[in-house]
Amino acid sequence: MVKGEWIKKGAVVIDCGINHIPGLIVSENTVLSAKRFLEGHQPGKWNISCTKLNLQKPVPSDIVISRSCVPKPIDRLAREVGLLSDEVELYGKTKAKVQLSIVKRLQAQPDGKYVVVTGITPTPLGEGKSTTTIGLVQALGAHMNLNVFACVRQPSQGPTFGIKGGAAGGGYSQVIPMEEFNLHLTGDIHAITAANNLVAAAIDARMFHESTQSDKALYNRLVPLSGGQRKFSPIQINRLRISVFITRFARLDIDPSSVTWQRVLDTNDRFLRKITIGQSPTEKGYTREAQFDITVASEIMAVLALTSSLEDMRQRMAKMVVATSRSGQPITTEDLGVSGALTVLMKDAIKPNLMQTLEGTPVFVHAGPFANIAHGNSSILADKIALKLVGPEGFVVTEAGFGADIGMEKFFNIKCRYSGLRPHVVVLVATVRALKMHGGGPTVTAGMPLPKEYVEENLELLEKGCSNMRKQIENAQHFGVPVVVAVNGFKTDTEAELDLVCSMAKAAGAYDAVRCSHWAEGGAGAVALGQAVQRASGAPSNFKFLYDLELPIADKIRIIAQKIYGADDIELLPEAQHKVELYTKQGFGNLPICMAKTHLSLSHEADKKGVPTGFVLPIRDIRASVGAGFLFPLVGTMPTIPGLPTRPCFYDIDLDPETEQVNGLF
Amino acid sequence: MVKGEWIKKGAVVIDCGINHIPGLIVSENTVLSAKRFLEGHQPGKWNISCTKLNLQKPVPSDIVISRSCVPKPIDRLAREVGLLSDEVELYGKTKAKVQLSIVKRLQAQPDGKYVVVTGITPTPLGEGKSTTTIGLVQALGAHMNLNVFACVRQPSQGPTFGIKGGAAGGGYSQVIPMEEFNLHLTGDIHAITAANNLVAAAIDARMFHESTQSDKALYNRLVPLSGGQRKFSPIQINRLRISVFITRFARLDIDPSSVTWQRVLDTNDRFLRKITIGQSPTEKGYTREAQFDITVASEIMAVLALTSSLEDMRQRMAKMVVATSRSGQPITTEDLGVSGALTVLMKDAIKPNLMQTLEGTPVFVHAGPFANIAHGNSSILADKIALKLVGPEGFVVTEAGFGADIGMEKFFNIKCRYSGLRPHVVVLVATVRALKMHGGGPTVTAGMPLPKEYVEENLELLEKGCSNMRKQIENAQHFGVPVVVAVNGFKTDTEAELDLVCSMAKAAGAYDAVRCSHWAEGGAGAVALGQAVQRASGAPSNFKFLYDLELPIADKIRIIAQKIYGADDIELLPEAQHKVELYTKQGFGNLPICMAKTHLSLSHEADKKGVPTGFVLPIRDIRASVGAGFLFPLVGTMPTIPGLPTRPCFYDIDLDPETEQVNGLF
Repeated sequence: MVKGEWIKKGAVVIDCGINHIPGLIVSENTVLSAKRFLEGHQPGKWNISCTKLNLQKPVPSDIVISRSCVPKPIDRLAREVGLLSDEVELYGKTKAKVQLSIVKRLQAQPDGKYVVVTGITPTPLGEGKSTTTIGLVQALGAHMNLNVFACVRQPSQGPTFGIKGGAAGGGYSQVIPMEEFNLHLTGDIHAITAANNLVAAAIDARMFHESTQSDKALYNRLVPLSGGQRKFSPIQINRLRISVFITRFARLDIDPSSVTWQRVLDTNDRFLRKITIGQSPTEKGYTREAQFDITVASEIMAVLALTSSLEDMRQRMAKMVVATSRSGQPITTEDLGVSGALTVLMKDAIKPNLMQTLEGTPVFVHAGPFANIAHGNSSILADKIALKLVGPEGFVVTEAGFGADIGMEKFFNIKCRYSGLRPHVVVLVATVRALKMHGGGPTVTAGMPLPKEYVEENLELLEKGCSNMRKQIENAQHFGVPVVVAVNGFKTDTEAELDLVCSMAKAAGAYDAVRCSHWAEGGAGAVALGQAVQRASGAPSNFKFLYDLELPIADKIRIIAQKIYGADDIELLPEAQHKVELYTKQGFGNLPICMAKTHLSLSHEADKKGVPTGFVLPIRDIRASVGAGFLFPLVGTMPTIPGLPTRPCFYDIDLDPETEQVNGLF
Repeated sequence: MVKGEWIKKGAVVIDCGINHIPGLIVSENTVLSAKRFLEGHQPGKWNISCTKLNLQKPVPSDIVISRSCVPKPIDRLAREVGLLSDEVELYGKTKAKVQLSIVKRLQAQPDGKYVVVTGITPTPLGEGKSTTTIGLVQALGAHMNLNVFACVRQPSQGPTFGIKGGAAGGGYSQVIPMEEFNLHLTGDIHAITAANNLVAAAIDARMFHESTQSDKALYNRLVPLSGGQRKFSPIQINRLRISVFITRFARLDIDPSSVTWQRVLDTNDRFLRKITIGQSPTEKGYTREAQFDITVASEIMAVLALTSSLEDMRQRMAKMVVATSRSGQPITTEDLGVSGALTVLMKDAIKPNLMQTLEGTPVFVHAGPFANIAHGNSSILADKIALKLVGPEGFVVTEAGFGADIGMEKFFNIKCRYSGLRPHVVVLVATVRALKMHGGGPTVTAGMPLPKEYVEENLELLEKGCSNMRKQIENAQHFGVPVVVAVNGFKTDTEAELDLVCSMAKAAGAYDAVRCSHWAEGGAGAVALGQAVQRASGAPSNFKFLYDLELPIADKIRIIAQKIYGADDIELLPEAQHKVELYTKQGFGNLPICMAKTHLSLSHEADKKGVPTGFVLPIRDIRASVGAGFLFPLVGTMPTIPGLPTRPCFYDIDLDPETEQVNGLF
C-alpha cells in the first residue's frame, strides 16, 4: 500500500467516527496515523514554497512583471495553506474557490491577527493601499516566514478598459496572474450582474402586469389552478403569512416613482446614466426614467461582502427593499418572489477565490463593493476563513477602500459589527506626494504630468500637509486600535522628506512609522513594515465602535461627521429629512450608517485639502440597503457608472494569438 | 519509483524530444514505455466507466433526476476520453475547459462520424431535439460501447428564470449537473455580455467625444504627445494603413441613425426592448433611441460559434461592422480600437466546456447563438475537437436549433461551409403531437393543457400532418445526406400512431425511422436509433451546399425560400433592397445567408402549419454580421429579448442552505 493512499483511508475513517464502524479493527497504529493526518491538516506552521523575485531596474510594467513569474499550481498552494482537496474547486490552473464547509471544520481554531490597511486622504492617483497590502504580506510570508493571507477586493472590470487600468497591486507587489485578477476572475461580478438585473426585470414586469390585469386575473396567474387545486410556492407562502387578502397578495402596488433598484453593467457606459425604458409598443406606454449603475454598486455586491453564511445570504436576499408601495409599505425582493433565484445565482459567488502574490503567498480575492454608496471592503467570509487558516500566530491583512475617513470607518462600524471580528492593527498608507497636496501643492490630475512641487524636495509643503495624516491617525485611534504608518516611497522622494513623515507620524501618536519600497523591491522592501506590524499586534488595544446602533439616524450621521470628518454639524436637506422619518417608521432606523461622501477630502468638497474645519455637512438624501444592512446618506451627487474617455485603455490591450499572452494591461 | 511517476517522467522526455536532452540515457525500455504512454493517449477505443441509471416511474422532474446521479469527477472523464491533464482546465468538480492546443496535437488523427440532430417544424413546446441528442449519445456510448461525444449549445440564462425552464435535455436523457448547465456554466455568456457592451459603450462614447471636440483635439487625445513623441498603438497602426488624413483617422463620423450594434443582457427584461439613452446632463443632450437584446443574440456569440482558432477569432473581432459613417463607409470594431480588448475578454470563452450525460458519456457545451438573427448551432471548435477525440469509428452528435428549414439549413450552408466538416447522417426528430398539429389539430399553447386530439389516438390528423415531415426529409436530401427519423414517443402516443409515423417516414425517403423512449428510459430507449444511425453513417452520401456564395444576395435568399420553405418567390421590401445595394457595394455580397424567419411554420406566418404553398416570402430588411460572416434577412419582426410573464419560473427556484441543493429548476 502506497503511503498517500493509506493516509487517505485514514482520513475517511476519522470522518466516519472511528468507534462506530462495525467490523473495523482499530489498531494503535491506525489511531496514531489518523492523528498525525489530522495534525497535518491543522493550521500550524505552513511550509510554503515561496517564489524568488528577479528584480529589474527600472521596474517594468505590471503586466510584464506578472507574466515573468510562473504562478504555482493553485492546488499546490491550497495544500500548502492546509486546505483539503475536497474543500477546493479549481478554476483553471491559477484560481480556485474555497468551499464554505471549511468554516465548520476549523471553527474551534483560534483566529490569527487581523490587520486592516487604509490610507490618508489620497490624490486622484491613489497612494498604493493595494500595493502596500500585497507588499506587506509578501514581507510577512516570504521574508519573515509567518503564515499570512491577504484579503483584497475583486476590481470592477469596467475601469480596466476605461482609464484606471488594473488593480492587482503594482510593481513587485502584485496578485498574479494580474490579467485573471482584473478580468472575469471566477465570474462573481457577472453573477451579481445577472442577479441584480433579474430583480430589475421582475420589478418592471410586475408593475406592467399589475397595470394591465384585474386582481382576480393576477391571482389566477400567480397561483394557477392545477388539477382543481391551487399550489403556493414556498416563497409565496412566506408572503401569505403577512397578507391574508387577495388584493394585497396579488397586487404589490409599487409606486413607480419610488423604485430605488437600478439595473447594472460592469462596463463604463456613460450613456446609461439616465435612460427612459419601456418605449417598445409591447409595453403599452408604461415608460419610466431609470438608470444603470456599475455592477459593484449593486446592493447584491454589498450583501456578498457582508454575509457570513449561505443561510444568512438567503435571508439578506429576501430583505432587500426595492421600492415603496403606494400605501407606504417597503417592497422587498421576497415580495417579488425572486429571492430564492437570487441565492441560486449567487451560490458559487459566495465562495472566496484563492490566488497568490508574486512571491507565492496566498490571497483571497472576494467581493468588491463600491466604496461610496456601499462600504468598500472585501468579504467577511474571506477574512474569517483566512483568520482560521493562518492560525493564532499568523496574520490576515485586509484592505479598506478610499481614505481612513471612509473605508476604515466603514470597516469598523459596518464590517466588524457584522463579522464580530476585532482588528489588531491599522496600517495607514501615506505618500509624500499626497501630503504635499494637503500642504497646499498644486492640483494633481490623472493623466497629466506632476507639477514640480511633487518631484522636488519641499519640506515646507510636506510638513504642512502632515495635518491630514495626523487627523487620520486620530480617526483610527477613536476605535482604540494601534496605528502603523507605512510611508510608501516613490523614487522622487528624498531621505529628508521620508524621515520627516515618519517623525511627524510618531509625534501624532502612531505606534510606529516606517518607510517601505515594496513597489520596487517586493516583500523585501516591506520587511521593516512587517516587523512593525508584528510588534503592534502585540500592543494593548481596546476596540470600540464609534456610535451605538440604537441612536436616532441623524445622531449617528452627526457623530461620524463631527468625530471623523471634523464638521461643525450636519444639515439634513428636505429629502433626507423625509427619509429619516420613512426609514424610522419602516423599522430600519437601527441600521449602521454608510456615508456616500467624496474620498478626496475629509469634508464634502473634493478641493478642500488638509484638514478642513468650520463646515456643515449637507445630507442631500438617504437611501437604504436593507439586505446588506446599512443606510447610506448621500453627501452631494455620486456618479454610479463611469464613462469612457476619448482614448480608453482598450486601445493598448490585445491578445497574442500565438502565445495566448495578454498585452497592454497595466 | 512508483509507476505513475515513471510514466509522467516518460511523458516529459517525449515532450522535450528524446534525442535532444544532453546526458539522458535512452534505454530501449524507456523508448518502449514512452511509446506505450503515447499510445495510451492516442484516440482509440475508450474505456469509459458508464453510470447505471436507476429508472423510476413515473419519471421524476429533471432536477430530481439530475440530482439523483452523482457525476463522475470531470478530470476522470477527461482522462477517459484521451485528454491530457495539461489540456484540461477544471472549473469546479463537474465542468472543465479544454485548451485549443489539442487541435494541433490531434491534427493527423482521422475524424469520426458527424451526425446532426434536427427536427420537423415544432409546436411552441419543442419536440425534444436536445433530449434526443443526449439520448442518442447515451445509447451509442453507454449501450453500444462506441466512442461518442454530444456537442450542444449553452442555453441562455434569461429564459431559465422566465417561462422556459432548463435546456439540458430532459427526463433520463440529460447533461448533468443540470443546474450548472443552465446557470453560469464557466462564464462564456457573461464574457460575451461584457465584450458586447464594451463595444456599445465605445460607440456612444466615441460619437459623444467627436461631437464635442475639434479634429485636432481628438487627434491629440487619441495619440497623445509623450516625451516629444506620438506613439500609435498597434490597433491604431492598423487604421493608419487605411487613413492618411488626420480627419479620417481621428473622426469616424458615425451616422447615429446607422448604428446596428445593440447592448445585451442575459435577462428577460422586456422594458429594455426600446429605450432612450444619454439623458443625463453629463451627456449634454446627445440622446438617441437604442435597445437591448438577449446576450445570445450578440454577434460575438455567433463569432464564438463559427471561429476556428484564436487567430481567426482575433480577425473576426476586428471585422464586426457596427454602423456606417456619414460618407457610407462601414465602421468596424477595429476602427473603434476595441478589437484586441474583445479578444482578451473572450480568451477563455473560446475553449469548449466538458460536461457529462446522466450515463457518464462526454458532452461539449459550447456557444449558443440565437437561431433566428444568428445561425443557432453550437461551436465549430467543439465539433472539431470531438471528432478527433472519438476517432474514425466514433460518433459526434451535434444539434441544430429549431426545425430543419432553419437550424439544419444554416448548419449546412453556414456552419459546415466555415468548418469544412462534412456530415454523415441527419437525425430528424418528429413527434406525434407536432404532426397532428400540422394535420390541422387545434392550437398548442405553452402553459395550457393539450386539447384531446393530442392525447387520444387520431390517425387521420396524424397522417395528414406527416406532410411536414416529408418536406423536412426532402430538405435534408437537398444536401445529399441520409436521414434517420427519430420518433420521440410520448406516453399518450399509441402503437398504431408510432408505426404510422415510421412507415410514412420511410415512404418519404428516410434511410430509416425508429421509435425511441430515451426520455423515460435513457440510452436504453434509443439503442434502435443508435443502430440506425450507425448503419446510415456507412451509407453513401454526397454532400453539397444549396447555393453558391458568389451568387447575388437576392438569388441566394430566393433559393432558400423556394427550395427549403416552398415559397413561390421572395419580395424585397424597400429597406431590404437598399441593404442589398449597400452590402454589395461594401463588399459583403458574397457572405452566406442566415434567414431570420419564424420556426413555427415553413412559411413566414407562424400559424400556417403543414406544408404551406402559394406564398411569396417578404424580406423586410437585411442586416450584416460581418465578423461572424453572414447576412441576415429579416422576414417579419423578430423579438430579440424575451419578457417575464406574470408568474415567472423563479417563484419556484430556491437553494437549500443546508444541503446547497438547487430546488425548483425544471
